[in-house]
Amino acid sequence: MDILKEKIAHYGKVFPGNILKVDGFLNHQVDTALLREMGKEFGRLFRGEKITKILTVESSGIAIAAFTAYEMQVPMVFAKKSQTKNISAEVYTSKVMSYTHGKVYDIIVSTEYLKKGDRVLIIDDFLANGKALMGLIDICNQAGAVVAGCGIAIEKAFQGGGDELRKKGIRIESLAKIASMTDTSLIFAD
Amino acid sequence: MDILKEKIAHYGKVFPGNILKVDGFLNHQVDTALLREMGKEFGRLFRGEKITKILTVESSGIAIAAFTAYEMQVPMVFAKKSQTKNISAEVYTSKVMSYTHGKVYDIIVSTEYLKKGDRVLIIDDFLANGKALMGLIDICNQAGAVVAGCGIAIEKAFQGGGDELRKKGIRIESLAKIASMTDTSLIFAD
Repeated sequence: MDILKEKIAHYGKVFPGNILKVDGFLNHQVDTALLREMGKEFGRLFRGEKITKILTVESSGIAIAAFTAYEMQVPMVFAKKSQTKNISAEVYTSKVMSYTHGKVYDIIVSTEYLKKGDRVLIIDDFLANGKALMGLIDICNQAGAVVAGCGIAIEKAFQGGGDELRKKGIRIESLAKIASMTDTSLIFAD
Repeated sequence: MDILKEKIAHYGKVFPGNILKVDGFLNHQVDTALLREMGKEFGRLFRGEKITKILTVESSGIAIAAFTAYEMQVPMVFAKKSQTKNISAEVYTSKVMSYTHGKVYDIIVSTEYLKKGDRVLIIDDFLANGKALMGLIDICNQAGAVVAGCGIAIEKAFQGGGDELRKKGIRIESLAKIASMTDTSLIFAD
């Protein structure tokens, strides 16, 4: 998706340790006109999949997932990262290793909002080693829901998580795919 | 806002301890068509305020703030709740007592994304004792930005936080204001 790649090329900052900082437009300060276009693009890509629900995990995926859900006219559910008083006791949970935070956390979805028969489009801002997606897929499996696909804003293809999931037959569409990153450069895959 | 009040009356669940659970349409599963209308309503209410930025705090405020920012055509910034590798070192921080989680946490905004001269509309899903808003207002003050107003989805008016802030001259617009709640009932203020 050209407008996303242009934003990354122009405003993205590369830091040591394969960190790509896009907090000027995607995950701290957010350009919602861009997100509306991303939602339309995910809608176009997954139009034939009879999606019934958009699933993401707090926090950076929420705004992207919200515009995708708006475009596709289905509910959006965001998995929570810790059990709060406001979530009912009956939940699906999965453990996820966070690359960004360097720790393991639980992701949680109420059983009320994901059911057998749902066809789920999972949305997230980044795909690197794929651990967050695997946790969300695990939760869909627990619910008996079908993972119809995953829509990702930025895939760090060189970290391998995307191809590992594709080999398992999961459809993954990334709007910007990064082939390689050094401390000073960034090369898109296509 | 009638469609929000109808949703609360129909799908909201009241639990002991003044807990109003709206996770079927607002903060776990999300009705984005409703959020688009809420964004339009905040846009209408604050049209004259020359807003330059929408500010919220992760996670439940993000989707509401995103649609408000989209409507008003300004950037949205969401404060983070813990320091991560992906936030630059130069930040504003404030301490907030969470009613929902029963603990104190830091909220963080990069100095890059909030500046002197900004006119900020703060958005959040709930206003109860006002602690989250006070933290976000504190961050605006640190930045030298003007708090032009606060847009709230659901105000628990009986907990007093809203009126305390209004007495300080802060403009607060709540789309649904709850006058009282018992373990089995809920009465709107107007």
